[in-house]
Amino acid sequence: MASKREDIEYLEYIFSKFYDIGANSYGGVTRLGYSKVEDEMHEMFKMLGESEDFNTYIDEVGNTYIANDISDKKYYLMGSHLDSVVNGGRYDGVAGVIAGLLILKWAKDEKIDIPIRVGAFRCEESSNFGKCTIGSGLITGELSKDDVKGLISKTGKYIVEVFNNKGYSFTPKRIENIKQYIELHIEQGKVLEEYGIKIGIVSDIAGPRRFEVSILGEAEHSGATPMDMRADALCAASEFILELEKLGKMESYRKSVTTVGVINNGPNVLNVIPGEVTLGVDIRGIDIDSLDIIENGMKNTAKEVSQKRDVKVFIQEAGRFDPVKMSSYMQKKLIECSDRLKVTHKVMPSGAGHDAMAFSKICDSSMVFIPCYRGISHNKSEFSSLLSIYDGAKVIYEYLKGEM
Amino acid sequence: MASKREDIEYLEYIFSKFYDIGANSYGGVTRLGYSKVEDEMHEMFKMLGESEDFNTYIDEVGNTYIANDISDKKYYLMGSHLDSVVNGGRYDGVAGVIAGLLILKWAKDEKIDIPIRVGAFRCEESSNFGKCTIGSGLITGELSKDDVKGLISKTGKYIVEVFNNKGYSFTPKRIENIKQYIELHIEQGKVLEEYGIKIGIVSDIAGPRRFEVSILGEAEHSGATPMDMRADALCAASEFILELEKLGKMESYRKSVTTVGVINNGPNVLNVIPGEVTLGVDIRGIDIDSLDIIENGMKNTAKEVSQKRDVKVFIQEAGRFDPVKMSSYMQKKLIECSDRLKVTHKVMPSGAGHDAMAFSKICDSSMVFIPCYRGISHNKSEFSSLLSIYDGAKVIYEYLKGEM
Repeated sequence: MASKREDIEYLEYIFSKFYDIGANSYGGVTRLGYSKVEDEMHEMFKMLGESEDFNTYIDEVGNTYIANDISDKKYYLMGSHLDSVVNGGRYDGVAGVIAGLLILKWAKDEKIDIPIRVGAFRCEESSNFGKCTIGSGLITGELSKDDVKGLISKTGKYIVEVFNNKGYSFTPKRIENIKQYIELHIEQGKVLEEYGIKIGIVSDIAGPRRFEVSILGEAEHSGATPMDMRADALCAASEFILELEKLGKMESYRKSVTTVGVINNGPNVLNVIPGEVTLGVDIRGIDIDSLDIIENGMKNTAKEVSQKRDVKVFIQEAGRFDPVKMSSYMQKKLIECSDRLKVTHKVMPSGAGHDAMAFSKICDSSMVFIPCYRGISHNKSEFSSLLSIYDGAKVIYEYLKGEM
Repeated sequence: MASKREDIEYLEYIFSKFYDIGANSYGGVTRLGYSKVEDEMHEMFKMLGESEDFNTYIDEVGNTYIANDISDKKYYLMGSHLDSVVNGGRYDGVAGVIAGLLILKWAKDEKIDIPIRVGAFRCEESSNFGKCTIGSGLITGELSKDDVKGLISKTGKYIVEVFNNKGYSFTPKRIENIKQYIELHIEQGKVLEEYGIKIGIVSDIAGPRRFEVSILGEAEHSGATPMDMRADALCAASEFILELEKLGKMESYRKSVTTVGVINNGPNVLNVIPGEVTLGVDIRGIDIDSLDIIENGMKNTAKEVSQKRDVKVFIQEAGRFDPVKMSSYMQKKLIECSDRLKVTHKVMPSGAGHDAMAFSKICDSSMVFIPCYRGISHNKSEFSSLLSIYDGAKVIYEYLKGEM
């Protein structure tokens, strides 16, 4: 088997092959799902598999696979995605795919007979079509034709057109014969870095609940309206935001988080009291009771703010997904493998969504997180070391060997 | 002299002459300062003066005057502006100009020998060139060539070009022989309406202090970052906004007000914790001590929020004007006239800026406010009744007769 240095060099080589695809002049990459740039990523992935003499194939929705065994035997599926957000980073998704290639190579070098396939799933990010995990969702049957067929891309292209041109199908045969699914991914948070821990073993994937909150006050002249005659929508929004933060902090012992990521203010002019504010609320957690408490608390806050400040507050649901549990058997085994390899680890939830959510509905699934610099993701500054990818891959390979 | 009904009909007539100029399909008007549309407004104003056989003239910066006497005698100057904001209303400015025309007509009908001129001052709104009261500012010497010559309009036109084409000058001879300046204007607030009072007699014009506040936190994944590892710029901004509101309420007994009218959030994406927020702060009042207390309080709040939340807060001054006192002699006399005419009145500050600010530097000046529907201004829904304009004009005419 290759030395650690050769392994890192191999990772460097395959990482570099993807490096320039979709690169922009700001230093980041834009590789939107089901775009030409994502096609290029998949072609490169296929080429890298072929150059190691593995089998490669594409499924009915455009996901690409590299396999060391395409017989009917049950196989271990590793995978992640090759698309990115607009001006995104080079590790989100790609890390899991190249970890899979390294593991395939190890198994080949050591002549170990484990049927492994590495999948690159299409359009994991919602950046292009406003919907995430389309490739893994369709192939696992988690998404139906009706969920997807009406989608339109950022540039106004119908997904129907893309599928027609490529010969993809919205009603593919469900993927089968998967024994277990394992996905390595960058953490996209800074917990591992702050704790100085090498890998995270994911216990649950948080279910987001999303809301659009509209607050209607009165837009009036900022100079001519005394403080006691105002219905300032931005002050009302500020109170709402801080109360929602309190709810998140109160429920943080159960790993819930609350975020107002979006605020739009109208008319947003210096000499006019804000008359209308809309907020985008993202609540996530792995404990449904905790999520319910936050959601109810938010609704009560809306009522209180509305009464106290004489504004109208409307809450509209914009998405709701239940949290997903990773296989506890696989978690336990991954912990044992990490211990054996002396790779420090931490069991943790995933706040972000991943392709593993779709697979968890049809087979035992698990995720291994690796640290990323300051938790930065979806950004050109996204960085994770190849050594971290190597560490994660080692643990997964150890796990797979144990399953033989 | 004409009956009240005939006076209202005259107001209706002259108001209707301006009605369609700059009208847009949304129901409002766009009459930007030093634009062709404002030219049209001034031409109409001139025509209305000429049709009553008054003298008319234009000064070196484009302000238009209608006068019943153009001798060297000291005269009473009434006036306001004919420009508007983008999609503005039809009363802001125009009300004062047509009140002046009505008063000129009364003086003519009653053959009363008071030298009165009505001025329409150019570009009172900052909407076109980012600077307000340009016409009144230049002609009173309150604005210099240096303050103005570099300005560029919304559509990219240099003010220098406009002035050259029209033969206007940035260094006009200062306007002279004004005995007193009186401006009728819609309140642009809802104090008069809420109190059920017919006119406001302005004591002071508030001096705005403006700031741009930047708050830098950390933009991180909303799902993957625990509550206790965040530096959420929007939560910090919310605290800042509520503290500034408290300061405004605390100082409201001295008629100060505080407003955050502008908020811009970055990256403003649902699944990212806000990393950078900028706020536009507007503090106004008529008492410098009170303004100082608010400004210092705001700076302390910035420090506290910064320390507590591990964010950076930068405050940059964006404008500072001292409050301006209206003539107390004129105020007193206007109160007496209102009492005599049984027109209910209230002495009040002006939160908004007006042409009267410029004139107050060179002569005794005063302002009379009339109610406007729900305080709405800078908007197609702006409305003030012609009867209110009539009431205000009556009081001013009574005052002028008393000064003979």
